Amino acid sequence: NGSTVESLDYEVVENFAYREEQAKRGKLYMGYAVLVKWFLALLIGIGTGLAAVFINLSVENFAGWKFSLTFQIIQKSYFAGFLVYILINLVLVLSSVYIITCFAPAASGSGIPEIKGYLNGIDTHGILLFRTLIGKIFGSIGSVGGGLALGKEGPLVHIGACIASLLGQGGTTKYHLQSRWLQVFSSERDRRDLVTCGCAAGVAAAFRAPVGGVLFALEEVTSWWRSQLMWRVFFTSAIVAVVVRTAMGWCKDGNCGHFGAGGFIIWDISGGQEDYSFEELLPMAVIGVIGGLLGALFNQLTLYMTHWRRNYLHKKGIRVKIIEACLISVITSAISFGLPLFRRCTPCPEADANSGIECPQAPGMFGNYVNFYCQNNKEYNDLATIFFNTQDDAIRNLFSAKTAHEFSAQSLLTFLVMFYTLAVVTFGTAVPAGQFVPGIMIGSTYGRLVGMFVVSFYKKLNIEEGTYALLGAASFLGGSMRMTVSLCVIMVEITNNLKLLPLIMLVLLISKAVGDAFNEGLYEEQAGLRAIPLLESRPKYQMRYMTAKEACGNQNVVYFPRVVKVADIVSILRSNDHNGFPVVDHARSGETLVIGLILRSHLLVLLQSKVDFQHSPLPCDSRGDLLPIRHNLSEFVKPVSSKGISLHDIHFTPDDLEMYIDLAPFLNPSPYVVPEDMSLTKVYNLFRQLGLRHLLVVPRPARVIGMITRKDLILED
Amino acid sequence: NGSTVESLDYEVVENFAYREEQAKRGKLYMGYAVLVKWFLALLIGIGTGLAAVFINLSVENFAGWKFSLTFQIIQKSYFAGFLVYILINLVLVLSSVYIITCFAPAASGSGIPEIKGYLNGIDTHGILLFRTLIGKIFGSIGSVGGGLALGKEGPLVHIGACIASLLGQGGTTKYHLQSRWLQVFSSERDRRDLVTCGCAAGVAAAFRAPVGGVLFALEEVTSWWRSQLMWRVFFTSAIVAVVVRTAMGWCKDGNCGHFGAGGFIIWDISGGQEDYSFEELLPMAVIGVIGGLLGALFNQLTLYMTHWRRNYLHKKGIRVKIIEACLISVITSAISFGLPLFRRCTPCPEADANSGIECPQAPGMFGNYVNFYCQNNKEYNDLATIFFNTQDDAIRNLFSAKTAHEFSAQSLLTFLVMFYTLAVVTFGTAVPAGQFVPGIMIGSTYGRLVGMFVVSFYKKLNIEEGTYALLGAASFLGGSMRMTVSLCVIMVEITNNLKLLPLIMLVLLISKAVGDAFNEGLYEEQAGLRAIPLLESRPKYQMRYMTAKEACGNQNVVYFPRVVKVADIVSILRSNDHNGFPVVDHARSGETLVIGLILRSHLLVLLQSKVDFQHSPLPCDSRGDLLPIRHNLSEFVKPVSSKGISLHDIHFTPDDLEMYIDLAPFLNPSPYVVPEDMSLTKVYNLFRQLGLRHLLVVPRPARVIGMITRKDLILED
Ligand SMILES: Nc1ncnc2c1ncn2[C@@H]1O[C@H](COP(=O)(O)OP(=O)(O)OP(=O)(O)O)[C@@H](O)[C@H]1O
Ligand SMILES: Nc1ncnc2c1ncn2[C@@H]1O[C@H](COP(=O)(O)OP(=O)(O)OP(=O)(O)O)[C@@H](O)[C@H]1O
Ligand SMILES: [Mg+2]
Ligand SMILES: [Mg+2]
Repeated sequence: NGSTVESLDYEVVENFAYREEQAKRGKLYMGYAVLVKWFLALLIGIGTGLAAVFINLSVENFAGWKFSLTFQIIQKSYFAGFLVYILINLVLVLSSVYIITCFAPAASGSGIPEIKGYLNGIDTHGILLFRTLIGKIFGSIGSVGGGLALGKEGPLVHIGACIASLLGQGGTTKYHLQSRWLQVFSSERDRRDLVTCGCAAGVAAAFRAPVGGVLFALEEVTSWWRSQLMWRVFFTSAIVAVVVRTAMGWCKDGNCGHFGAGGFIIWDISGGQEDYSFEELLPMAVIGVIGGLLGALFNQLTLYMTHWRRNYLHKKGIRVKIIEACLISVITSAISFGLPLFRRCTPCPEADANSGIECPQAPGMFGNYVNFYCQNNKEYNDLATIFFNTQDDAIRNLFSAKTAHEFSAQSLLTFLVMFYTLAVVTFGTAVPAGQFVPGIMIGSTYGRLVGMFVVSFYKKLNIEEGTYALLGAASFLGGSMRMTVSLCVIMVEITNNLKLLPLIMLVLLISKAVGDAFNEGLYEEQAGLRAIPLLESRPKYQMRYMTAKEACGNQNVVYFPRVVKVADIVSILRSNDHNGFPVVDHARSGETLVIGLILRSHLLVLLQSKVDFQHSPLPCDSRGDLLPIRHNLSEFVKPVSSKGISLHDIHFTPDDLEMYIDLAPFLNPSPYVVPEDMSLTKVYNLFRQLGLRHLLVVPRPARVIGMITRKDLILED
Repeated sequence: NGSTVESLDYEVVENFAYREEQAKRGKLYMGYAVLVKWFLALLIGIGTGLAAVFINLSVENFAGWKFSLTFQIIQKSYFAGFLVYILINLVLVLSSVYIITCFAPAASGSGIPEIKGYLNGIDTHGILLFRTLIGKIFGSIGSVGGGLALGKEGPLVHIGACIASLLGQGGTTKYHLQSRWLQVFSSERDRRDLVTCGCAAGVAAAFRAPVGGVLFALEEVTSWWRSQLMWRVFFTSAIVAVVVRTAMGWCKDGNCGHFGAGGFIIWDISGGQEDYSFEELLPMAVIGVIGGLLGALFNQLTLYMTHWRRNYLHKKGIRVKIIEACLISVITSAISFGLPLFRRCTPCPEADANSGIECPQAPGMFGNYVNFYCQNNKEYNDLATIFFNTQDDAIRNLFSAKTAHEFSAQSLLTFLVMFYTLAVVTFGTAVPAGQFVPGIMIGSTYGRLVGMFVVSFYKKLNIEEGTYALLGAASFLGGSMRMTVSLCVIMVEITNNLKLLPLIMLVLLISKAVGDAFNEGLYEEQAGLRAIPLLESRPKYQMRYMTAKEACGNQNVVYFPRVVKVADIVSILRSNDHNGFPVVDHARSGETLVIGLILRSHLLVLLQSKVDFQHSPLPCDSRGDLLPIRHNLSEFVKPVSSKGISLHDIHFTPDDLEMYIDLAPFLNPSPYVVPEDMSLTKVYNLFRQLGLRHLLVVPRPARVIGMITRKDLILED
């Protein structure tokens, strides 16, 4: 299990090959590199935007077709309709789980914890591959179209990240273009920036919320942020908005079936409540508290579920995973179809000519007040209005204004309990699954419930239940994912009601505070479970009392001499699984001197290519030769999410093993070092802020060669 | 000049006193510290909110009174009205410039470059003092109320920062509370966080844009950002919103004179254009280009102006500054009153019952279509509508929808040229001055101009000139200040039109790109001029070819031995102006060993208190005593923005000079070090990311004691 994650090297290895490359590059090259970066940002935006449009289009068409077929059939027989409904869902879910289990196992779940890990410096194998991208796209069409209690927003973030990473390395891991123009992206750091852009693009595409996307990437996903990056991410998001908008404009004319009917803003409630009074703050605070509690509970329950799944259920093989998902699909379909049948219908409210809301609507119109299994044709079924519907439409109904008393408390409560349970149970099955939309569903249900009481309590005030539903949604997401600013902006962008912003802030503050009292955020919990060792931005408290030396314990440092026999390299590499080794040389005076750090992956490249083997055990520069450059810098870059070269695959002749390699041209000559008695807090800050992988602990220096202050770093152009 | 700025020490000095403090503190203390931090965030929010309300209230009442008085008088005589108008403005400006020059010189200008410097690690003297706060508050009331071409938004950021810093140190620099509960904030790092909160609060209060405030602090002002801070800043902003909203609600009932009439959203245009067609993208791109050009030109012109002012004009003393400001005030008043008089009046448009816009309005009503010096009472003066008005109302008129063809191209052009010139000339006078609102004025003028052409060109489309004015405003700010995300959010929050967000993004991208081609952002340019050496987040290109050793040149490092004679300390401190000195000791084997770094300011504290002087030249621990703790940790903390102790003020007896001090308990035992041949890029990253002040360049280590990787830093609780 521990072998599926590996740290990334964000540090630039300033070895000989790198310096040569740098020396060859002029100012012009820099301008070109910048251009390529922006061009890639553009491509990421376009790619993610198109992927989102494709997914949305497919999901809405599948779902639309499913519902209209079912509705047609239930005109004759409810039972036949029930069977067809279950069957269609089952087929969709089955296709999804099949794709995931047999083709792209890394594409299950939301992918956000893994991406968060990647941007924190941990590479999970398989997470950014081409097959994962494909699996994620088609898998989420199946799982979301199949009506499970999950969303497509998390997967879209993952999709954006995959697209970004693939573009950055010029194609799939096996067959990527080794074209010169992509060598700009030879460092992990540049790739990290691209992936950040991809995440932002994913959110921007999922919610059609460009600014929310930028902030999501900034607040929730990345661990390092630079202000230049902000602008590039912003650009990508803007491109996504343009692409999605254009596609929607094109679809509006009916080119895309069921897709494209709504506006750019998903759940526009701008016509609703605009003002609020002080009396309302108390019930809103209550919503915040409920959100915090239910959110924390959700995190805890899903943690147990996932834990149990990993350790018992999913160990039994692929078949169990498939059966599990199918079972959940059948249960979900049965509940969402069956429960509304048991619900008594409600008479339509007094017709209000102004509001423009009809009652009842024919089933299949996806509006409020759906007539489902009602005898009287002036009645509607409130449970069916939210349960037997796509999640998007259900949320629209829950958010809707001017529909006071549409739902009964009983229906909402039933729905809340059922959907919450389904969301918990569905979490962790082997399908792509986001938690955003289910969270909004859950939150808006209890929000609307609270809103109902407020409406009947304060009769005079101009209160909309839909507003409370919105606040409920914000509170649940805040209580579960623990985001603040980005969530605020996303909520505003998806509902287009800026006047409610202060209320959303209030609710989020409360729900996050309440949730934090119980456990960590959803993504952190899940990352922990998947053994992704995220480094938080703040050092642990007990680190204050520890020093760097204590942190390494009494380890025996494995090191290499400068010129080393191939046989020795092989045996040392076999004997441990460290990934970096200090290289030690002897100075003329006979003292030892640490001349750098060599990475395991670079050693493997050297061993595989064999061009640097030499017969003499002397350093190459001492023989008077110039250092030959036999390697291209990009050879040393490991493709993302793959294991790289393995020692077992390299074949050595006995002659090879007797040869030597001079490591000097290939090592990182200046790794970061810390004195042995530096407190671990400071070490942690250094490690975390710079995104390091290795840090050498060294003795106190004997003398100071110079002092560097701000003045020395301000260079004139 | 160079002596007015000094670096800040964000590094925690882990000396003996610090370790003692830490050891005494338990978990409980940590909780308490967190509580205090949140409490201070609350106080900052309340304080900044109240300050903003106070300033707004005063400015609007002064301006309202001024305009209504003038309007009353011009019913009888335009000339008398002219004189009264000039006189009132003059008195207000005079009071402002008097306060600034004689009482709080650090309060002139916007203050944002200095705050940016502070958060980058440079302390400008006087910038965060209590008197600066007072000067800024009353000064901006005078300068904004006096009708100069400047705004109160930049000053509000500075005010927020001052309030935060004062709260953090418990009062003014001279008389601050040395209460125990504030000792939580003994580190510069905590103060930096507070100041960040203060900046966000300032923007949130100025624009009533809480999310915009958070993003402004994040994108434009701070140099380091941690995700925990995000939440605290968000909280502060929310509090500001609550405070301002509450105050406005209270004022709505007429308690505050002219203030409180408008809604929470400053320039609400939510009723305007909601959709846009592809044809409109071209003129919008043109607006972006114009914004970039005019913004860059503005930065360049103000740079020359400020340069000239500093080097010639303001050297001549306070009186020149006062005369200059008064002159500008008189010119501004004359132009804003006089120019509309020369303008021919326009007949009112056809009355439209639905729009609810009256024409003409009586002067003094501050709406559109003001009748000023018009004979016919069905006429209005379009230049007076924007020029002879408060800036807030002028912007509201420029943004207004359903008022097509209100302004003539000639008037807008006149206004643009005049106001642009005034804004450039006013910049840098000795009054508090923000550039946000003038920027919005300029931008919305040419935006509306473009909009007029678009309206008459594409006759059929549903286009509002006000939308173009908004885009123009965004483009000018983007071209001058070079912000992206924060500006986007601020623009949306002040106009409440979310649907225009993608357009604003587009325009900002273009204008920033165009502006960046010419020069740096306004605040960076100004910081450069004020000799505030900001460290950018990206290292310079040529640093790749330099090593750490080359950066320090061949400096002779000034160091101290561990036990040092007082006379030696004094003479060394006198002989140079370095702020940190390595301390070297002899190991038992006779070799030297660098045991730490001592700061000049700490040495001065030791010299002043004299309690650590000892007669023996032996280290204190070698004498078998325990290290005595005679100092409280907070004694070592320098008050913000003040020079601290000066060596000249300390009096030494000849006996004192013969004594010794053991520096070991007071030095920083583990300063960050870099090996001599590390490339300057890496050194720069280290220095910048960790916010250092001193970095020791040391020889390559002889051996490696241990390796620290991620695994070693993940501690179990
Ligand atoms: N060259 C080395 N000699 C001795 N101990 C080492 C060496 N390199 C690493 N270690 C130690 O071995 C342990 C595991 O090291 P490893 O290199 O696998 O790092 P890691 O934290 O697992 O990260 P990753 O393997 O993903 O880079 C750590 O405790 C580390 O201190
Ligand atoms: N102890 C020292 N010995 C020798 N040179 C030093 C020493 N400390 C600093 N210097 C050098 O002297 C120059 C100015 O140092 P100084 O300490 O004034 O720093 P600064 O950049 O001005 O920042 P600040 O003074 O605000 O901390 C720098 O070039 C620095 O490298
Ligand atoms: Mg490992
Ligand atoms: Mg100095």
